[in-house]
Amino acid sequence: MSSQQKEYRTVVSIDPFKPASQQKGITNRWHPDIPAYATVAEGEIFHVQCHEWTGGQIINNDNADDLQNIDLSGCHNLSGPIAVEAAQPGDVLVVDILDVTPFPQMQWGYTGIFEKENGGGLFAREFDSRAAKAIWDFEGIYATSRHVPGVRFAGIPHPGLIGTAPSQELLDTWNKREAGLFNANKGVVPEVALLPGIKGAYVGQENIPQKVRDKIYAEGARTIPAREHGGNVDIKNLSRGSRCYFPVYVPGANLALGDLHFSQGDGELSFCGAIEMAGIITLKCRVIKGGVAKLGLKQPIFMPSPIDPKYHERIIFEGISVEVNGDGTQHFMDATVAYKQAALNCMDYLGRLGYSREQAYLLLSAAPVESHVGAVVDVPNACVTMELPLGIFERDIMPTDDGIERKECGQAALRSDGVRCLQHPELAPWRT
Amino acid sequence: MSSQQKEYRTVVSIDPFKPASQQKGITNRWHPDIPAYATVAEGEIFHVQCHEWTGGQIINNDNADDLQNIDLSGCHNLSGPIAVEAAQPGDVLVVDILDVTPFPQMQWGYTGIFEKENGGGLFAREFDSRAAKAIWDFEGIYATSRHVPGVRFAGIPHPGLIGTAPSQELLDTWNKREAGLFNANKGVVPEVALLPGIKGAYVGQENIPQKVRDKIYAEGARTIPAREHGGNVDIKNLSRGSRCYFPVYVPGANLALGDLHFSQGDGELSFCGAIEMAGIITLKCRVIKGGVAKLGLKQPIFMPSPIDPKYHERIIFEGISVEVNGDGTQHFMDATVAYKQAALNCMDYLGRLGYSREQAYLLLSAAPVESHVGAVVDVPNACVTMELPLGIFERDIMPTDDGIERKECGQAALRSDGVRCLQHPELAPWRT
Amino acid sequence: MSSQQKEYRTVVSIDPFKPASQQKGITNRWHPDIPAYATVAEGEIFHVQCHEWTGGQIINNDNADDLQNIDLSGCHNLSGPIAVEAAQPGDVLVVDILDVTPFPQMQWGYTGIFEKENGGGLFAREFDSRAAKAIWDFEGIYATSRHVPGVRFAGIPHPGLIGTAPSQELLDTWNKREAGLFNANKGVVPEVALLPGIKGAYVGQENIPQKVRDKIYAEGARTIPAREHGGNVDIKNLSRGSRCYFPVYVPGANLALGDLHFSQGDGELSFCGAIEMAGIITLKCRVIKGGVAKLGLKQPIFMPSPIDPKYHERIIFEGISVEVNGDGTQHFMDATVAYKQAALNCMDYLGRLGYSREQAYLLLSAAPVESHVGAVVDVPNACVTMELPLGIFERDIMPTDDGIERKECGQAALRSDGVRCLQHPELAPWRT
Amino acid sequence: MSSQQKEYRTVVSIDPFKPASQQKGITNRWHPDIPAYATVAEGEIFHVQCHEWTGGQIINNDNADDLQNIDLSGCHNLSGPIAVEAAQPGDVLVVDILDVTPFPQMQWGYTGIFEKENGGGLFAREFDSRAAKAIWDFEGIYATSRHVPGVRFAGIPHPGLIGTAPSQELLDTWNKREAGLFNANKGVVPEVALLPGIKGAYVGQENIPQKVRDKIYAEGARTIPAREHGGNVDIKNLSRGSRCYFPVYVPGANLALGDLHFSQGDGELSFCGAIEMAGIITLKCRVIKGGVAKLGLKQPIFMPSPIDPKYHERIIFEGISVEVNGDGTQHFMDATVAYKQAALNCMDYLGRLGYSREQAYLLLSAAPVESHVGAVVDVPNACVTMELPLGIFERDIMPTDDGIERKECGQAALRSDGVRCLQHPELAPWRT
Repeated sequence: MSSQQKEYRTVVSIDPFKPASQQKGITNRWHPDIPAYATVAEGEIFHVQCHEWTGGQIINNDNADDLQNIDLSGCHNLSGPIAVEAAQPGDVLVVDILDVTPFPQMQWGYTGIFEKENGGGLFAREFDSRAAKAIWDFEGIYATSRHVPGVRFAGIPHPGLIGTAPSQELLDTWNKREAGLFNANKGVVPEVALLPGIKGAYVGQENIPQKVRDKIYAEGARTIPAREHGGNVDIKNLSRGSRCYFPVYVPGANLALGDLHFSQGDGELSFCGAIEMAGIITLKCRVIKGGVAKLGLKQPIFMPSPIDPKYHERIIFEGISVEVNGDGTQHFMDATVAYKQAALNCMDYLGRLGYSREQAYLLLSAAPVESHVGAVVDVPNACVTMELPLGIFERDIMPTDDGIERKECGQAALRSDGVRCLQHPELAPWRT
Repeated sequence: MSSQQKEYRTVVSIDPFKPASQQKGITNRWHPDIPAYATVAEGEIFHVQCHEWTGGQIINNDNADDLQNIDLSGCHNLSGPIAVEAAQPGDVLVVDILDVTPFPQMQWGYTGIFEKENGGGLFAREFDSRAAKAIWDFEGIYATSRHVPGVRFAGIPHPGLIGTAPSQELLDTWNKREAGLFNANKGVVPEVALLPGIKGAYVGQENIPQKVRDKIYAEGARTIPAREHGGNVDIKNLSRGSRCYFPVYVPGANLALGDLHFSQGDGELSFCGAIEMAGIITLKCRVIKGGVAKLGLKQPIFMPSPIDPKYHERIIFEGISVEVNGDGTQHFMDATVAYKQAALNCMDYLGRLGYSREQAYLLLSAAPVESHVGAVVDVPNACVTMELPLGIFERDIMPTDDGIERKECGQAALRSDGVRCLQHPELAPWRT
Repeated sequence: MSSQQKEYRTVVSIDPFKPASQQKGITNRWHPDIPAYATVAEGEIFHVQCHEWTGGQIINNDNADDLQNIDLSGCHNLSGPIAVEAAQPGDVLVVDILDVTPFPQMQWGYTGIFEKENGGGLFAREFDSRAAKAIWDFEGIYATSRHVPGVRFAGIPHPGLIGTAPSQELLDTWNKREAGLFNANKGVVPEVALLPGIKGAYVGQENIPQKVRDKIYAEGARTIPAREHGGNVDIKNLSRGSRCYFPVYVPGANLALGDLHFSQGDGELSFCGAIEMAGIITLKCRVIKGGVAKLGLKQPIFMPSPIDPKYHERIIFEGISVEVNGDGTQHFMDATVAYKQAALNCMDYLGRLGYSREQAYLLLSAAPVESHVGAVVDVPNACVTMELPLGIFERDIMPTDDGIERKECGQAALRSDGVRCLQHPELAPWRT
Repeated sequence: MSSQQKEYRTVVSIDPFKPASQQKGITNRWHPDIPAYATVAEGEIFHVQCHEWTGGQIINNDNADDLQNIDLSGCHNLSGPIAVEAAQPGDVLVVDILDVTPFPQMQWGYTGIFEKENGGGLFAREFDSRAAKAIWDFEGIYATSRHVPGVRFAGIPHPGLIGTAPSQELLDTWNKREAGLFNANKGVVPEVALLPGIKGAYVGQENIPQKVRDKIYAEGARTIPAREHGGNVDIKNLSRGSRCYFPVYVPGANLALGDLHFSQGDGELSFCGAIEMAGIITLKCRVIKGGVAKLGLKQPIFMPSPIDPKYHERIIFEGISVEVNGDGTQHFMDATVAYKQAALNCMDYLGRLGYSREQAYLLLSAAPVESHVGAVVDVPNACVTMELPLGIFERDIMPTDDGIERKECGQAALRSDGVRCLQHPELAPWRT
C-alpha cells in the first residue's frame, strides 16, 4: 500500500451470499462467555461486515415462501463480539457509528410479513397474518420496490441491533423475568417471549471449549428484544453519524451488532419490518472510565446524526387506546393500542390510494414514517400519532374535495399458494 | 373603520382574569344538544378567545396550593361551540389553525403537577405525587421560568383540545365504553376514567331550556380524553399553521376548542403538563361535502405547520417495557411502560444536572421534548425514546469524561406546607 | 392592573393609519445628535410600534398609482432612537428580537415595484420598470395575495432595518465615501446613492434646539443602505427569536429600527421588495462592556431563530456572471450579475406557470426564496443560485415530461393608466 | 454472479493513485467533437469513477509544496463523456445523482490555497496568497483534519463540476466572450480567464483522428467556470439525492463530470476550496424529448436532496460592498465585494478562536458554511451574509461577556520554505 493509500481495517468479514451459520465472527446469542472475535484500539476506525438478520434465508424473488418457511431459531445473526482495549465493567463505551452501507455487490434488501404462527408481528392476530414481502432496490441513497410501486425515499441506514455483552448477573436477570412472562402466557400464539434454546444457537468461532459452548447455548439470551445493554432497539434514527453511550459489563465490552436496516418506520410494525439488508458498518470507539457511575447510565443514550432526511410535509393520523378499528374495546392508557389504531387509520388511507393490506403493512414498516407519543395522561385514552411523509410518494397523495385518488399499485410478493393476510372488513375495508 | 383597516371578527370573547364559570361562550362538556354559541361562514377568518383550561384557578405566585386544591369538575373550559355554515353530518370540516397567541395582558402560563388523589398524572403512583408548579414567562416566542432556571425555548403554541360535537349515537358509545372501564376499576386512585357528572358542568349560554340543559349535564362527556372526534389529543405539533380534517356529526359541526398550550412535550407527562395558557386562536374553516365517506375518515387527520423549531441536536434516552427503574417487572410489549422508563432515564439525567424531581417532571412536560415509538414488535419489549433537545438549555449539558456538570437550579413552586413528591431512591436517586 | 396581569411596556406608540411625519418617536435619518426618544433598562422587555417604511403612503387597493407617485425623501420611517441604560461607546449591545407582528387592526402589507426614475430596483433599467404592487393579506402566520394568486406561505417576520446610532466620526466616513461614489456617477438613473438632504428629513421629537435639528437634517445619513452599524441589512432571517450583537458608538447606543417585513426573499430584488408592513416588535437588550474590542466587532453579528419555515423542497436556478438573459456580456466574477441571471431564469419559470413579469418580480421579492453564493472563484464566472420553494405554491409546479403547466393567474396591481414594465422578449419571453 | 447478486456497472474506471494523464475515460476540455467514452441506457444505474480534479498532483503530507508547484493546465480532470441513448439536441437530460463516495482505499481529501501567481483564489491579491493546504481524513460521513483541529463535520458530497457537451455554436460563444474579457485585462495577476490552450489538454481515448484531436485541443473550452451547460457550478447542495435537468446540445448529450467534493462552503473561496477528493459517483439518466423548449431551459435547474445536514445554529456575519476591512472604498451594489467582507469578518472571528489566516481561509472553503444574498437593492450597498454553523466545532464558540475564548490550533500545511500568506494587520489583525 502506497503512502497515499488509506483504508480502514475490516474486523469481521462475511459473504452475504452464504449462510451465516457457516461463517466466522457471527453469533446469535448474548452471553458473557462468548469470547471476543476481534479486538480494536480506542480511536481506531474499523469496518464490520454484517449478514442480514436471518443469515441469508431470504431470496430476491417474487413470492414469500421463504418467509413462510423461515427458521427464526438462528436469528439475529450478529457480527462480533468485538472487544475494545481498555474497556472494563463500569466504564461507558462511546461508539461512533460513522457509516452504514449495503455491500456493493448486493444492492437490495427486503421487508417481510411473517406468518402468525412463525414470527408474528404487530397485527399477527388481527390480520391472521400470512407471509408476504417486498424486495427493495437500492439506488444510491434511495430505495424503491417493484412490490410497492409509487414510492421512492432516502434511507436512514442504521443497525437495528447493537449492544454490549451482559454480565452473568444481568443475563440471569433477563432470563428470569422473561421466563416468568413466558410461563404466565403459555400457549399464546405468537409466543410472548423467546427463551434461551440450543436450537439454532451459534457462535462462529473455533477453539471454544465445548463446556463453555454448551453453557453459552443453554443460557444465552435471544437477541429479539431490546434490553438494558441496548440490543434490538430498532430505533430508526440510530443512523450513520450517531454517537452512542453503552454501559460496559464485561472486560473489553464485547460489542455485537447487526440487523442492519436501510430504512425503518417508527415502530417497525411488521417485525421483519425495516428494509433488512446485509452490509458494512464503520465504527470508532472510546472509553469513559467509570462512566456508568459518572453518568448514572442505566441504559444506552445516544446523540443523533446531523444527517436526517428533510421530509417535513406529512399527514398525521391519530390513534387512541380504543379499538375504533375493531370491536370498540376501551383500554386504559395503552400506548401500544393507540399506536396500532394510528397505524390502522394510516393503512386505511394507503388502501384508498390503491395499496393492498400487505403493501400498506410493509410500507409503514419500511419507510421513514414517524410515530410520536402525543399524550399518555388523558384518562382513559393514550393518544399516539403516525406521520406519513408526503415526500416519499411519487405523486401528490393529499386529500382533495373529491376524496383520495386511487391508482393501481400491483401487489406485494405473496405466498406461492396465494394465501394472504385476512381481509377483515371491520379493520380496514379496502381493496379486496 | 377606515378602508385601510382590516381586523378579524372575534366570535368568542372572554376575560382571562375572571372565572370561566361566569362567562359566555364557554362550555366543558361534549353533547350534541349544546347549541352553537356563534356561527361562521366558510372561508371567514375569525378569532376565538380561550380561557386557560382550569378557568382561572391558577395564580402567578410561588407556591402550589392552587394546584393542590384545584376543582377539576369544571375542566376543560372550552370556547364554543362554533357552527360552520353548510357543515352537515358526513361532511369533513377542514380547519386551518392560523395563529395561537397569549393575551397581550397575560404574558405567562404554567405547568402543574397534581396530587395523586386530585388529578394524578403519569407518575402519580410511583411518585406519590404532590402539587407543584412552574410559572412560565412569555418573552415573545420564548418561554422562561423562575421555577426551572437555565432553560429558554421557543414555543409551539397549539390548542391541546379541539373537536367537533358528537352525535347522540357517538356520545352513547363513549359513555358506555368508559363506564365499563370505570366500573371494572372501582376504587383505583387516581380514577381510570371520568364519567359524566353534573358537578361543575357548564354551558355559558342563556336561553337553553332547562330540560335540555339537564340532559347535557347528565350525559355530556367529559373533555379529558381524546376520542374519535379529536378532543383532547394534546399533540404538540398541532400548532399555528396546521390544517386539520374533522368528521362532522351534527349540523354546523359545532366545533369547540381550548386548553391552549404555549408549548408541550410529547406525552405531556404530568397531565397538567404543557405550558397552559389563556389566549387567542385564529381559525378559518371549510367543508368537504360527504368527506367522511370520501376520505374514509374515522378520526381527524392533520398536516403540520411549516413552522417548527429547529432543535435537532438532542440526547436520546431509551425505555423498554421492563421496570428497570423500579422492581424489574417484565411487561409484554407495553409502549406506555416503555415511555415511562424513557422518561425516568431522562429525569435522572436532569437530576444529575441539578434539577429536582418536580422540576424535571415539569420540564419534560412543558418543553419541546419528543418521544418516538422505536419498536413495538420485538417480543417482549416495546422500545420508546425520549429525546431531550440541547438547544433549550442555556448551557452545554452534554456528558463529558468527567461526567455531568451539576449546577444549583433552585426549586419549583411547591405546596406551602412543604410536602413534596416522593423521593424514591430506586426510581431516581438524585438530589434530595 | 391586577397582580395576575402582565403586559410589557410600549416605548414608541404610533398610529399606522396616520402619516409618519405627524407622529412622535419616528425618525428617518442617522445622526449622533438625535436625542433618545425613550430609554430602557437592561433586561427589560418592551414593545416598539413601527410604521411601514414609507410612513403610510401605500393604499390597500388595486392600482399602483401610490407607488408611482411615492415620495421617498422621508424614507425609511424608523422608530426610536431608544437608549439602553449603561451602554457606552465601545460596548456591544445584545438585542433579542423576541417577536414581530402586524397590528391587529391592519392585517395586510404590500410589495412594490418602483418606477425606474423614482426608486428603481434591481431590474429598473432592464425592465424600464413601472409601478406595480401586490397587497398581501395576513392570515395568522400566512400571507396570500389577490394580486399573486396560487401562493400561500408562512412569514418570517423581521425588521428590515435595525442599527445603533453612528458616532460623528463614523457618520463623516459614510458621507464622504458615498458622496465620492455619487459624484463619480452623476446623472445615472436611478441614482447610485442617496446623499443627506433636508427634504423630507424628520425627527419626531419636540424640544430639539433648532441648531441641532438643522445639523441633523443637513448631515444625517439616509437610511437606505446597510452600513457598519447594521442599518438596512434586509436579511430575511433576522426574525423573531434572533439575537443580534451591535457595536455601540454613542452613549445609550440609540437603537433605531423599522422597515418591518412580514416576509422577504433573499436579495429583496424589487427594492420595495419584502412584504412591507406596519407592526409591533418586542425586544430585550443587554450590554457587553468593552465588547467591541473583546469580540473584534466591526459589524453586527447575529444568531438566527430556532423558528424558520421548513420549506426544503425547491427548484434551484443558477446564474452566472454572463448576461445570458440579455446581450451575452461577460462580466468578471460579479456575483450581482450572477444573482440577476439566476433571478431571470427563475422569473422565466414563473412566467411559464402563468405569472406576469410584475407578479414574478413581486413574488421573488416577497416569498421565502433563498439565494446562495455558489462559487466566486471560478474565473471568470461567479455562480449564484435562486431557490424557489415548492411548498409556497398551492399546486404542484414541478416540470413534467409535458413541460410546465400554465394556469391563469390574473395580474398584479398596475398603474391606473395601464403602463407596465417592459416586456423585453430577450429577457423573458413569457406572457404578454 | 448468482441471481442474488446485484451490482451496478462502472462505465469509467480509474486508479486514483496514478496520474490522470495516463488513464482512459478522462478529459479536461469541453468540445462537441470529443467522442463519447461510454454509453448508457435511459434508466440504467451506473457508477463513474472520478479522479480528484488535479489528477493526482496532491500528496497526503504536511507541506504545501505540491500546491505551490501545481500544473493547472490539465485541470479539471473529468470523467466522460458519457452518452445517453436517445438524447438529442433540444432534449433535456434528467440526471439523478444517486450517490457520491470516496474510494474505499483513499479515505482522504484536501483543501488548498494557491499562490497568487499560480491559481489565485478569492483573496489572492489581498493576502498575496501563498500555498497552504489541509488534509482531511474521512471518517464515514465525517471529515476531520490534523491541519485544522477542533472541527468535525458531516460532508455533503457532490460533483463540483457536471455538464453536457456544448454545441460548436455554444462553444464559439464562450470562447469569444471570454477572449474579450481576457484581452481587456491583459497582464492582470491572477488571470481573469483561462483561454483554450493545447498545453495540458487531454482526452483519454485512443482512435481519435489526429485532426479531430488537434481541433479539440485548440478550441476546447477550459473547465474552470460554470457556463450555460452547467460545468463548474460548485454548488455545495448538488449532492447525492439531487435531480438535475440539463440542456442537451449534441447527440447523446455527452455528459462529463468530476471535481468531486466531500464538502464545500458556499462560495468555495480559496478556489481549490472544497474538500477535493477522488471518488465514485452513481447516476441514473432520463430524457425529456424536446424539453429545452418545453421548460424554457437556458441553464440547468435542479432539485436538492432530502438529505442535508441539520446545522441550524450558527453565527451570521454581514458584509457590505464597502471595504471596511481594507481601505474603505465604496463599491456600487457589488455582491462579490460584500461576500468578501462577510468572509473577512468571519475569518477574523476564527482568528480570535485561535485559527491562523490559512486555517480560516481553508475552513470557510471546506465546511458547510452558507452564504446568502441579503439584499442587492439598497443603494449603494449590497449586503451578503456568511453563516458559520456551530455544530461543526468540537467546542462552544459562542461569544461570552468575556469575549471569545482562544485555543491553540496548530497550523495548516505550509510551504516547506516557510513563506506564508500576507499577515496584513488591517485586513485581519489576528495571530501572527
